[in-house]
Amino acid sequence: MSDITGKQSLRFSEAPYIISSAAIVGKKEGEGPLGDYFDMVGEDDLFGCESWEEAESTLQKQAATLALGKADLKPQDLRYIFAGDLLGQTIATSFGLMDFNVPLFGLYGACSTAGESMSLGAMCVAAGYADKVLTVTSSHFASAEKQFRFPLEYGNQRPMSATWTVTGSGAYVVSSQKSHVRISGITTGRIVDYGIHDALNMGAAMAPAACDTIAAHFADFGDPMDSYDRIITGDLGYVGQRILIDLLKEKGMDISTIHSDCGIEIFDKDTQDTDAGGSGCGCSAVTLSAYFLPKLISGEWKKVLFLPTGALLSTVSFNEGKNVPGIAHAILLEHEA
Amino acid sequence: MSDITGKQSLRFSEAPYIISSAAIVGKKEGEGPLGDYFDMVGEDDLFGCESWEEAESTLQKQAATLALGKADLKPQDLRYIFAGDLLGQTIATSFGLMDFNVPLFGLYGACSTAGESMSLGAMCVAAGYADKVLTVTSSHFASAEKQFRFPLEYGNQRPMSATWTVTGSGAYVVSSQKSHVRISGITTGRIVDYGIHDALNMGAAMAPAACDTIAAHFADFGDPMDSYDRIITGDLGYVGQRILIDLLKEKGMDISTIHSDCGIEIFDKDTQDTDAGGSGCGCSAVTLSAYFLPKLISGEWKKVLFLPTGALLSTVSFNEGKNVPGIAHAILLEHEA
Repeated sequence: MSDITGKQSLRFSEAPYIISSAAIVGKKEGEGPLGDYFDMVGEDDLFGCESWEEAESTLQKQAATLALGKADLKPQDLRYIFAGDLLGQTIATSFGLMDFNVPLFGLYGACSTAGESMSLGAMCVAAGYADKVLTVTSSHFASAEKQFRFPLEYGNQRPMSATWTVTGSGAYVVSSQKSHVRISGITTGRIVDYGIHDALNMGAAMAPAACDTIAAHFADFGDPMDSYDRIITGDLGYVGQRILIDLLKEKGMDISTIHSDCGIEIFDKDTQDTDAGGSGCGCSAVTLSAYFLPKLISGEWKKVLFLPTGALLSTVSFNEGKNVPGIAHAILLEHEA
Repeated sequence: MSDITGKQSLRFSEAPYIISSAAIVGKKEGEGPLGDYFDMVGEDDLFGCESWEEAESTLQKQAATLALGKADLKPQDLRYIFAGDLLGQTIATSFGLMDFNVPLFGLYGACSTAGESMSLGAMCVAAGYADKVLTVTSSHFASAEKQFRFPLEYGNQRPMSATWTVTGSGAYVVSSQKSHVRISGITTGRIVDYGIHDALNMGAAMAPAACDTIAAHFADFGDPMDSYDRIITGDLGYVGQRILIDLLKEKGMDISTIHSDCGIEIFDKDTQDTDAGGSGCGCSAVTLSAYFLPKLISGEWKKVLFLPTGALLSTVSFNEGKNVPGIAHAILLEHEA
């Protein structure tokens, strides 16, 4: 029995399910168009902590705790955690999840980590290695600005192509136990370098990777595009969305009518001054959980391709003149009656 | 069919194999006691590049290329790469491996990443998701000093408990195809925080995690300790080794006669001024490939527990007063005739 499908995909013969999820966000995200959908919205972005990094760890801890609670599970019911974040040495994860005392695989896929963690979690459950695993990702506007751009106190100006890192954490319990949302398969991304040099234009850096993974997905699975209700990218924003749609048109694929981007959904650019849209590991993780997953659970949507996108850079690589390559990991989600 | 064994382990019913591996190191490692065993030793630690980070990427690229070459494979024969390094946003991996154009899972487990990558790679092959995967990890003395401690130009003093980051990369091809070294199972580590605050005493920070994983391994597998030829930790060094042996004695387990540590093997502390020993993702990866694996291939050793150990910190977490927790991921390697 092999689940191998085409060059980059797996179609699970024993597909796992998302049995619960949670999304916790910061104040600004709570004020955005999806504000009412999130499980919890912080009063301020320190979440009672003394540093932005500690606040991000707390976000992960709370999202994980809530996802467990919704499924009526305890940490000891989990066999593995798959988790990551954007910070150097993924410290939000290490310090946020250590008290759960569960075997942990630390991941780094930049903002694609929500897709990477769910892919590996699903593979693990589908293989019979675990009955229940938890996948967790997070980002925090202030810790990310400090990590990648400038300390907030500088008050630097931002170009219109810049995205706004989402403060939030999404956690998912993936299990062999049935629910209304099945992870039917995955398409794992390759690193794609399109020669983008601008670290304030992540959308452009990630769109070619999203294009590559979407094209691979359709080649591997062979289902017609009109069988998909939605193709949802992580955080391309307005700039990246245009590029993705154009790149896929060159391949003869038109996703313009069924494409959504979590980074576009989460903020109102006209009133929230978020430029090209939201970004960060947390962006796709919280938006899927709070806004898109309910549509799959209810059956309003039957089939969705969810692909978080990541820009692979650090301040060191950027300052040494390196390009910003991208990667995107796709998850095929289907409604089950 | 379930491979689940005890609380933290898998014993693979369709065990995968290591069909080839490669170890490339820097000049100092080449001058150490294992110098003759490595596949390639760099003339200088820039490996023809303009920065330490680029040099580390080149190390990964070369180790991966060589491991493929030894197995007579091309990149397109690989289904997945599992890889990581110590740098912020794991840039050595992103820039080192992107030209292979293979679906990639980026990992961060600090110096335990060699164990983490081999665990996930083995799980993937054992589940039938891939016929061949590549696992790659690296570290570089100069990029790590810059990342975690001080620029080399400072010439700062080092306490005796400090370890010396190994410049090197190890790559492994894991496959369902038989060889003389089987990955019989894995024991996945949890994060263990022993309250260590000293970032220059990584051995002490990681030893409790190694103890936790070893204890879990024996509890899960239930095989007597004298059935193991060796228990090999990644980079505890002299300080961590003493602590590990003491901690396990408190649990009634004596590994003192069969314990080896890659960080202790790779340098001669008396002539190479490496204090407590070698460390880094690359340390365990190159030492297993070059020095220990041949003993398993020849059958001199029949059964080895290999567990790379990681210290989970960043300069940010350290400067914000956080402890240095540890994690260790174990791989059970057995000789097959």
